Amino acid sequence: MATQPVLIAGQWRAPRAAGTFRAHNPTTAEQLPQQYPISTWDDCDAALAAAAEAAVALRAMPASSIAAFLQRYAERIETHKNQIVEMAHLETGLPKSPRLADVELPRTTNQLRQAAEAAIEGSWALPTIDTRLNIRSCYAPLGPVCVFGPNNFPLAFNGIAGGDFAAAIAAGNPVIAKANPGHPGTTRLLAEQALAAAREAQLPPATVQLIYRISHEDGQRMVCDPRLGGSGYTGSRSAGLALKAAADAAGKPIYLELSSINPVLILPGALQQRAGKIADEFTDSCLLGSGQFCTNPGLVILLAGEPAERFVGLVKQRFESRPPTTLLGSGVCQALARSVATLRAAGASLITGGQPLPPPPIRFANTLLRVDGDQFLASPEKLQTEAFGNVSLFVIATDLQYLELILDRLEGNLTGCIYSATDGADDAAYEAIAPRLRWRVGRLLNDKMPTGVAVSPAMNHGGPYPATGHPGFTAVGIPASLRRFAMLHCYDNVKEHRLPPLLRNKNPTGRTWRLIDGAWTQKDVDAQ
Amino acid sequence: MATQPVLIAGQWRAPRAAGTFRAHNPTTAEQLPQQYPISTWDDCDAALAAAAEAAVALRAMPASSIAAFLQRYAERIETHKNQIVEMAHLETGLPKSPRLADVELPRTTNQLRQAAEAAIEGSWALPTIDTRLNIRSCYAPLGPVCVFGPNNFPLAFNGIAGGDFAAAIAAGNPVIAKANPGHPGTTRLLAEQALAAAREAQLPPATVQLIYRISHEDGQRMVCDPRLGGSGYTGSRSAGLALKAAADAAGKPIYLELSSINPVLILPGALQQRAGKIADEFTDSCLLGSGQFCTNPGLVILLAGEPAERFVGLVKQRFESRPPTTLLGSGVCQALARSVATLRAAGASLITGGQPLPPPPIRFANTLLRVDGDQFLASPEKLQTEAFGNVSLFVIATDLQYLELILDRLEGNLTGCIYSATDGADDAAYEAIAPRLRWRVGRLLNDKMPTGVAVSPAMNHGGPYPATGHPGFTAVGIPASLRRFAMLHCYDNVKEHRLPPLLRNKNPTGRTWRLIDGAWTQKDVDAQ
Repeated sequence: MATQPVLIAGQWRAPRAAGTFRAHNPTTAEQLPQQYPISTWDDCDAALAAAAEAAVALRAMPASSIAAFLQRYAERIETHKNQIVEMAHLETGLPKSPRLADVELPRTTNQLRQAAEAAIEGSWALPTIDTRLNIRSCYAPLGPVCVFGPNNFPLAFNGIAGGDFAAAIAAGNPVIAKANPGHPGTTRLLAEQALAAAREAQLPPATVQLIYRISHEDGQRMVCDPRLGGSGYTGSRSAGLALKAAADAAGKPIYLELSSINPVLILPGALQQRAGKIADEFTDSCLLGSGQFCTNPGLVILLAGEPAERFVGLVKQRFESRPPTTLLGSGVCQALARSVATLRAAGASLITGGQPLPPPPIRFANTLLRVDGDQFLASPEKLQTEAFGNVSLFVIATDLQYLELILDRLEGNLTGCIYSATDGADDAAYEAIAPRLRWRVGRLLNDKMPTGVAVSPAMNHGGPYPATGHPGFTAVGIPASLRRFAMLHCYDNVKEHRLPPLLRNKNPTGRTWRLIDGAWTQKDVDAQ
Repeated sequence: MATQPVLIAGQWRAPRAAGTFRAHNPTTAEQLPQQYPISTWDDCDAALAAAAEAAVALRAMPASSIAAFLQRYAERIETHKNQIVEMAHLETGLPKSPRLADVELPRTTNQLRQAAEAAIEGSWALPTIDTRLNIRSCYAPLGPVCVFGPNNFPLAFNGIAGGDFAAAIAAGNPVIAKANPGHPGTTRLLAEQALAAAREAQLPPATVQLIYRISHEDGQRMVCDPRLGGSGYTGSRSAGLALKAAADAAGKPIYLELSSINPVLILPGALQQRAGKIADEFTDSCLLGSGQFCTNPGLVILLAGEPAERFVGLVKQRFESRPPTTLLGSGVCQALARSVATLRAAGASLITGGQPLPPPPIRFANTLLRVDGDQFLASPEKLQTEAFGNVSLFVIATDLQYLELILDRLEGNLTGCIYSATDGADDAAYEAIAPRLRWRVGRLLNDKMPTGVAVSPAMNHGGPYPATGHPGFTAVGIPASLRRFAMLHCYDNVKEHRLPPLLRNKNPTGRTWRLIDGAWTQKDVDAQ
């Protein structure tokens, strides 16, 4: 069988492969027929060389061309929706509807369109003008960006279609996508549309490139290559930290979204008031997509007492009555079994579930575990092991002081939630714990589960290490996510006609927001 | 003789010292009498513990208290101006006037006051509100910041008074200052005023702490300590990269300002038009403060020909007629000799100068070297060795293509300058080279030397690695410099009274700029 080609320098071409791999269908637990290459460094090198050239060409192009590409790409994804959704379902087991067709694909095209709008409008670059000194600055493209996509969002976080891709492109950079080996066919279908859209928008052909799989060593070599501007990575902590070490040593920016267990604190008043409703919300959030979300609520912290015990019972009922759904693959299933074993070895006891179910399809029993506060404080690191899937750990703390101690031992997380009573019964407890939780998480929620990451300008899908590599950046939310893939360019005493359009006296679009002499305005410089 | 105390947890207390050191007076080349401690980890640990507590207390305080501290501190520095300037002159040899009293001290107090204004106003935090989804975000303090100050600005970049200090405090963080061992007495005098101002503003006592010197190992342990939010460092590349490696491995942000040789390209038309004027500007810029600036023009690139030779001759005359001025210390002088030796070994020939002058005072001959384009391209790394002081290297390129090749081999720099003719004679050359230079530097200048870094909101005192650790940040320029010492905090569905004032419906100051539903405004949310 022929090995699939890679997309390098505008051509689908035969890979320089060190081997091949095939994806699996988790619904049947069988291999899929297509054979994909494990590229050698030769492919990486060729992609980097082409990307470096494309970066130079892109810098000279108007933002409208980049926007046209993003818009055209979104349209093409919609046109080829059925084919893409079918393939994504085959490779990931995620339901075609609503998940893939009605949620994730529209999210993907929406992100691309928001990115297009941001690229045209330019405000993302924080154009800043000091008219008195004639010093002007804005963010500008970083250079070629390598995007490593995760397994759990075959479309919306795909290396060649997702959030990092859209942000890097909108900021003016070419992207080398490293497909997730779990869904190479989906990635190929997307890349075909990306290439066609790039041609239609007359972008440099190497603006979008795709390789499927490379060795860890070549991955580390990629992220520190002098031709690269930076990298985006979403995935496991261990692989991400190996890439980070390589990039850091070379002084190359890398933006990582790693593990997160997303603590949920439910205060007693809320449990008294609406335990059933919260149990429903929690179950929905934890079992949605088989729990395979970076914002999956993996740690629930309760104050000991009858309301807590009753709540645990309500969740147990729900976990046992819901049929477990298909996991992304056997790797996820095995990792879940390992994580559950680690949690149990550290003192957690099983409430329900705890083991893989006989395939096909590949599934893991809906699983709940529990520890008390003393146990948690005795092994805080092990008991924060991420179980990526339909598994959650309850921590039952004796009192508020225990709860505070527990919070102080939490690692950095993407999100943290606090449920409290609507009648004010939990307000004192909220005041005591919220400040502690606040500094451990990127997004603090009230009375709402953490899954469902809105693509909003105010979103932060980020958080303190080790949830991410840097607490100042968000992977979701336009325009802020674009600034990751940018460098700050200052112009001092530069003649006006030599400035980029964003920094000239005339507002380039009539609606770009610029910080002129300390005030944000859409006006021209002369009109100040 | 008694060893000077360290400032920890609001007290000047006896250090846990592993040894002592004394500063030198570079004007006399003699040791100064005061004895300062080399702290052990015990001091670092105590400072970190106190800073962690102060960080919690600071988060609960209004921005007006932080601003009051910064303002009061600026006033106190002015009140004690003579004493501070006298000590700084003694320890650094920098002229009392105009440099210390009339330039650097006013710059320092100006920065503190700009930081105070930024802290009160709050716009630096980019408050972003999505009213439809009720998601709100802004930058918030990172946690305790350790600031390592450089040798060359005893006031304006001092760890306890300079740009990093002002930015970290204004963003709401306590600072642990690590004094530069070159000017411990100046740092002590500043710290005394900082502590008094902190008391007057009723800030937590450990908001400002000072240690003088620590081992490299303890420095590396500091920047990765879990209690620390992040670090700021300005200084040598080797020490900075060791700190960066330690911080990176622990996932702790560190902002570094390292070496830079600040290429200056002077195009033939400009030389034809105004060689004498440019020679004056270059000489002033290169010899100012004995060339001990991070933005010192250390590399001048010219196109071969009679105008270039004449220009070199004009600069040589000026370098030989100006008396060399006192260096910061014998370490700087020895490093200069090493750098000149490295440049000569790599093929540079001496035009003038090249050796230390007999002390006292500690001085190095005003020095010019030259290489041709072939030589430069044969050893581009060695010929980009920073010579921190009154030394510059001319590169004479055969033609424009050589010049482009040279630009493509440049490392990341803080600045890059292009001088061109006013009559358009150099415009074609400018178009060819400016895009290449642009991506190698943080700040691009036209017809202006790089020294003199204005404290402007549009300034970028930063640039690609290895000039700094990350190309997206500036060390100078408020409000942008504050965002280095901040993390992104998002609030999702959080009740309004639980939000920080910056994100509530009412504009907290009536003049804070907030991005509400995509538009920058000073209005309240309700008034949208």
